[in-house]
Amino acid sequence: MSLTLYERLAAHDHRPSPFCWRTRFALAHKGLTPEVVAIRFTEADRVAFSGQAMVPVLVDGDRVVSDSWSIACYLEDAYPQQPSLFGGEGGKALARTLNHWVDATLQTSLAGILAPALYDILEPADQAYYRKTREARWGRTFESMRDERETYLAAAHTVFEPLRLRLAEAPYICGDAPAYGDYLIFGVFQWARCTDPQDMIPAEDDALRTWRDRMLDLYDGLARSVPAFGSAG
Amino acid sequence: MSLTLYERLAAHDHRPSPFCWRTRFALAHKGLTPEVVAIRFTEADRVAFSGQAMVPVLVDGDRVVSDSWSIACYLEDAYPQQPSLFGGEGGKALARTLNHWVDATLQTSLAGILAPALYDILEPADQAYYRKTREARWGRTFESMRDERETYLAAAHTVFEPLRLRLAEAPYICGDAPAYGDYLIFGVFQWARCTDPQDMIPAEDDALRTWRDRMLDLYDGLARSVPAFGSAG
Repeated sequence: MSLTLYERLAAHDHRPSPFCWRTRFALAHKGLTPEVVAIRFTEADRVAFSGQAMVPVLVDGDRVVSDSWSIACYLEDAYPQQPSLFGGEGGKALARTLNHWVDATLQTSLAGILAPALYDILEPADQAYYRKTREARWGRTFESMRDERETYLAAAHTVFEPLRLRLAEAPYICGDAPAYGDYLIFGVFQWARCTDPQDMIPAEDDALRTWRDRMLDLYDGLARSVPAFGSAG
Repeated sequence: MSLTLYERLAAHDHRPSPFCWRTRFALAHKGLTPEVVAIRFTEADRVAFSGQAMVPVLVDGDRVVSDSWSIACYLEDAYPQQPSLFGGEGGKALARTLNHWVDATLQTSLAGILAPALYDILEPADQAYYRKTREARWGRTFESMRDERETYLAAAHTVFEPLRLRLAEAPYICGDAPAYGDYLIFGVFQWARCTDPQDMIPAEDDALRTWRDRMLDLYDGLARSVPAFGSAG
């Protein structure tokens, strides 16, 4: 059966979307290797067949699923013999709660750093679209965000604190082995890896950084298989 | 077998501790009714038998367990035939992550409001202890915290956002039925109910408020069985 994942493409083959990385890891967790089709912000028409304009979109045979959470739920139900993404109904319910925290709090805390950083690695035609939509969403220009990097970073490190406490006592957010909760959070750090010239977690003994290294190693280095910032060209 | 819970006591029989409410609900979830022994901040010697000074402490026959998370894990293992607190290993791992978020982010965001509010309902001897330890912890006087109530509240409502998103799509944080993730969060709002003269969630159509009402109704109104602020005396 054919399996195709549509994800976001930036310049120089960068793959920055945190939402798409959730799905990449969910597929790997289930032992599935999709054909990956990467599209630019201004190519939304290429996923119009899904009835909406955003990525990720998964096509599994004749089944089309959009939205990273819906895809995770689909994979969990469609591939029950493979390792579970959630570890039971209790895990699924709290993974959904964590999903909202990642969207509303973690990603929002870093948007002031990562949105301008993503802008810098987009093709010019995508830059115009991205600047217009994101500056409107956050009510600030990218230039003013860049001026506040240190302020955003300090606030983000406060947001990181529960993750650090968790990772001080377990190798993964989900315990002894990684699962969807880890992928939700890692997507944000992969966004950073693809776009940001500075490391947001500079301390080598930071539990969050050690976990990030562990995540980069997973599934034969899946997250290292795409260009990092600075490796473009 | 005897079952005793040691919890925090304030003046006028108030029971403000969010940590102890986690345990109260975990016991009710397991269908267990403990004898409750309430002790003041300055009565730590009464739980010295547990090898530490804090509440909650659970005594189940000859077993003594302190720390709310350890108690939840103990109850899940000791009473496996009763409804699960976590809904599987995946749920337990993410409940622990949520526990850290509640401690490091949610409770911290509200401490500037709820610490001075708790101070006001303590006996004078406890007030001295509580002011000294909490003002040192937060690096501010209670008076300066009171001056900043509106600032703290606005920040707290931002912290609430992922909870609202979750509760807009499910009746409980843990899905169709309440579980430990709900109890972790509700403890904070019960702390507020016992101490704060103003409602932190004034909008009646707020999904968080609707959930709070649902939580107050659980287990024959367990959380309503203790005095709320203003009902003292």
